[in-house]
Amino acid sequence: MSNYTAPVDDMMFLLNDVFAFEKLMKELPGHEDTGADLAASILEEAGKFCSDVIAPLNQSGDQEGCKLENGTVTTPKGFPEAYKQFCEAGWNGLSADPEFGGQGLPRVLQILFDEMVCSANLSFGLFPGLTRGAIEALMHHASDDLKSTYVHKMVSGEWPGVMALTEPHAGTDLGLLSTRAVPQDDGSYKITGNKIFISSGDQDFGGNIVHLVLARLSGAPAGVKGISLFVVPKFVPKADGTSGPRNGVWVGALEHKMGIHAQPTCQMVYEDAVGWMVGEPNRGLNAMFTMMNAERLFVGIQGLGIGEAAYQKAQEYAKDRLQSRSPDGTRGPVAIIEHPDVRKMLLQSRALTEGGRALAVWTALQMDKAERHPDAAIRKQADQLVALVTPVIKAALSDFGFETAVACQQVFGGHGYVREWGMEQYVRDARIAMIYEGTNGVQAMDLVTRKLTMEGGELPRRFIALVKAELHAMGAAAGIGELLGPVKESVDRLERVTEALQKHATNGAELGAAATDYLRMFALTAFGWLWARMAAHALEAGADPTPLHRRKIALAQFFVARVLPQTLGLERSIMAGAAPLMELEADLF
Amino acid sequence: MSNYTAPVDDMMFLLNDVFAFEKLMKELPGHEDTGADLAASILEEAGKFCSDVIAPLNQSGDQEGCKLENGTVTTPKGFPEAYKQFCEAGWNGLSADPEFGGQGLPRVLQILFDEMVCSANLSFGLFPGLTRGAIEALMHHASDDLKSTYVHKMVSGEWPGVMALTEPHAGTDLGLLSTRAVPQDDGSYKITGNKIFISSGDQDFGGNIVHLVLARLSGAPAGVKGISLFVVPKFVPKADGTSGPRNGVWVGALEHKMGIHAQPTCQMVYEDAVGWMVGEPNRGLNAMFTMMNAERLFVGIQGLGIGEAAYQKAQEYAKDRLQSRSPDGTRGPVAIIEHPDVRKMLLQSRALTEGGRALAVWTALQMDKAERHPDAAIRKQADQLVALVTPVIKAALSDFGFETAVACQQVFGGHGYVREWGMEQYVRDARIAMIYEGTNGVQAMDLVTRKLTMEGGELPRRFIALVKAELHAMGAAAGIGELLGPVKESVDRLERVTEALQKHATNGAELGAAATDYLRMFALTAFGWLWARMAAHALEAGADPTPLHRRKIALAQFFVARVLPQTLGLERSIMAGAAPLMELEADLF
Repeated sequence: MSNYTAPVDDMMFLLNDVFAFEKLMKELPGHEDTGADLAASILEEAGKFCSDVIAPLNQSGDQEGCKLENGTVTTPKGFPEAYKQFCEAGWNGLSADPEFGGQGLPRVLQILFDEMVCSANLSFGLFPGLTRGAIEALMHHASDDLKSTYVHKMVSGEWPGVMALTEPHAGTDLGLLSTRAVPQDDGSYKITGNKIFISSGDQDFGGNIVHLVLARLSGAPAGVKGISLFVVPKFVPKADGTSGPRNGVWVGALEHKMGIHAQPTCQMVYEDAVGWMVGEPNRGLNAMFTMMNAERLFVGIQGLGIGEAAYQKAQEYAKDRLQSRSPDGTRGPVAIIEHPDVRKMLLQSRALTEGGRALAVWTALQMDKAERHPDAAIRKQADQLVALVTPVIKAALSDFGFETAVACQQVFGGHGYVREWGMEQYVRDARIAMIYEGTNGVQAMDLVTRKLTMEGGELPRRFIALVKAELHAMGAAAGIGELLGPVKESVDRLERVTEALQKHATNGAELGAAATDYLRMFALTAFGWLWARMAAHALEAGADPTPLHRRKIALAQFFVARVLPQTLGLERSIMAGAAPLMELEADLF
Repeated sequence: MSNYTAPVDDMMFLLNDVFAFEKLMKELPGHEDTGADLAASILEEAGKFCSDVIAPLNQSGDQEGCKLENGTVTTPKGFPEAYKQFCEAGWNGLSADPEFGGQGLPRVLQILFDEMVCSANLSFGLFPGLTRGAIEALMHHASDDLKSTYVHKMVSGEWPGVMALTEPHAGTDLGLLSTRAVPQDDGSYKITGNKIFISSGDQDFGGNIVHLVLARLSGAPAGVKGISLFVVPKFVPKADGTSGPRNGVWVGALEHKMGIHAQPTCQMVYEDAVGWMVGEPNRGLNAMFTMMNAERLFVGIQGLGIGEAAYQKAQEYAKDRLQSRSPDGTRGPVAIIEHPDVRKMLLQSRALTEGGRALAVWTALQMDKAERHPDAAIRKQADQLVALVTPVIKAALSDFGFETAVACQQVFGGHGYVREWGMEQYVRDARIAMIYEGTNGVQAMDLVTRKLTMEGGELPRRFIALVKAELHAMGAAAGIGELLGPVKESVDRLERVTEALQKHATNGAELGAAATDYLRMFALTAFGWLWARMAAHALEAGADPTPLHRRKIALAQFFVARVLPQTLGLERSIMAGAAPLMELEADLF
């Protein structure tokens, strides 16, 4: 069975045909020269690197896992070398600021690259992913001194980054954390406390490690308003910028996890560790949120990446494996891809994966606009749209990535349950994306409580209006008619439910009871819109569509006919309200 | 955190209040004396045994796994001793024929016991479960000689049973299998071939092991009509009935699996192994199907058992874990069971688990009727209903068991992803039940192709009529009104879709395209009916309901309001037909 192959054609279809990438880039100062040809050649190169260097370590890394010996983590065979190649080829700084050694490419190329890395090897992908998040936080909130000490080396990949938030009794509720920071005379701090679930907490890649740690100053207010953010390096940098003496940053233990075994998820102990504050005292959560929004998008991409990789293996297996007779009973054994239920699992997997990719690309382009567009009003509008869909991408794409991994595993029957083909690893690895960076339930709460009320409730209305206008404009495309009806119906449904929830804006129980169903409904409806858009562009090929265009049209039809109807039940379920959830006393559960 | 506690009160509510167990038993010769008190005391004892002896080995067994050394399997620490206790206490023969040393108890108690064993330790539960299936096949098809040699020792547990069907290229399609059987002069056969995925293929419990092996006689017709069934013991019994010389039955390797690590799933090699035919030549699949129907019910119960165990841990954690403020914002941190989305995950888990148990109990009582009722017409009717719902129980209860394990893992956040609490093991273990004994897709095909056409299509109509009549009769119960409407609506929906599928009876593509959605719709609708029934009985308690009754009513309301609406989307999806699945050529996937 072949290894992972990056879906560059599908990605370029989105960039070129669906989202007019080149035209948009010409409007964005700094990205004017990033044309479609450059994008295609970067994605081709990226795909080759992921297939050749990272993907071959995925199964071996899972089986070998990480080790903790004498206080130091050893990653699986091949990881340090692959990481070195990754950095040397410049992939670590793809979208980073050129001032700090980055290549300054648009975010949309970054997220497509991220997808490839996560398809190839999720455990590996977390190393650069977390570094990027840490860079983001420093770029937005750190002093120039801190930036000049750390960011260049983080962009090069020499000093990877780590986010240290969670403590045993402070997960979702970071306000409960108790790690302490004590100011020193020289302007630094001494950090002491225990953190758990720290991805990339330690490794053997040879450089320094830059921990961003949330901690509490003595006398700080209780709760989230008393948390500050600190840079805590594993080795204290010397004046010349190189790594200096060992800091009080220790690995207490490696977590024993369901998956991502090649990723050293650590329990960290900070003992009088020297650190420097990032941003203002007691405003650490604010700084961390800058990082977390980018991370949340990345976590959605992780689900997408695993879904793509699992699909690739499943469709290949389904074409090879001969079993049972054809549906009309005339031939057998036939390749199982002839069996309707196998087709259904594959089409659903692909429709959810490509729908997710379309939403992620749309969002990343909004982020590029928000960062670079010359018109401040457009920047702001784009930024708000990103805020609206970030929880949807994080939660829905990770949910669908897991569902896709499970469905693709099912295509293999018993062969999916054993280790050999790698399908069960996808399921174990995909599962984490639904949990970390804020569980998917927390994302859904963010959507219904904070995002639905932004701009006085105008933001979701603006999104829905945008979708409706696009669907209306598509009405003219040949052959799109039968698709458009159910999609419009689902947008009306989303609008009705959104308005109903906005009326509950101060009722935490009603919003909470609706949250996860609403987020799923939002995502499926957005996918419906984007599948209509993809189909409309594919239909432009007219009477002689390419195989790619025919596949897009078939996937759009499948999605609308067989997946989108879930929104019917979700509406009914949401509108039943909170009472059926809230009335039973806790002790009767 | 406490270990597993058997839900005996919930089970007795079903037996006593919902299904009038004692009354039915009095009608069944041989079970007249099995009253409610006896049932309760058996379930209490069973629960204690599972909690005290089997459950403590669940996590350690997962972590230790099985070993293959010098051709022999070693099970994890404690397993041989626990198995010995299990057999000595008589649990292995709970529902087996007293003529062969069994206790002859009704099947409904067997399946409730099975649920407990699977909650406590799925890997362990497969040993007696497979033995019971093997006994069933021998009881129905083997010669008296074979029965007298094997069955008594299998009922006692001394000689556990194994089903050896699958080969590398013959999974769902057993017609492709190539293991050979060569007749010997003494009436025995020599069996040669390789099997994979063989649960309980070997162990270290000290007795003989009875393999039931599917193989092909030379010159047998191709396909499933050329398969015969053989008893192939690990040790050839001597004339005095004790284990004799080693037979050509070898473990080639242990499978490396996602879960059920304490269960030795083997690749088996049969080399000129002595065997004896069970039943007629070339009718082996028929004999195996006797076993498989019981096994399929058991696999559904496995999903149920894991769902129950996962729920127990999740609700306890949710009551303990303090995080974030109450939905009205007035208090915090509060136990996470106050958060609506956590409640939703828990209620959904419990509603699906108890709904599944109700359907399983109803079905087991039909089996008891089918075996013992004095009226042949009633026996036949009951048997047909069992045939109808067997694929639904296998597939839906294993799907829901997995979904429940995933939801309950989610309640733990990051603590669900690490090994410590055992939640990730439930997910890994539950996954297998959707695959083996015929994948859930195969079950769905069985439902739509074979079961919907039984009795000339009358069987599903009879089931729906029975449900409708019960719902109609419930109309009088106080307070049931608001529940009944949506349930009746979903039954009408099931009826419409069933009729539509019956019109496609010869169209394999249409049936296959509908199959999994239809099975889920069937299951949810059946749960709706049974939740109405449970609520009606709970409501009989009137103005002063017990906590158990209040919980049943709340769960029924939750299920109808927040889960049953899925059937809306399923209907729409099914009615969209096969075209969206079948039109794309395989090479464009």
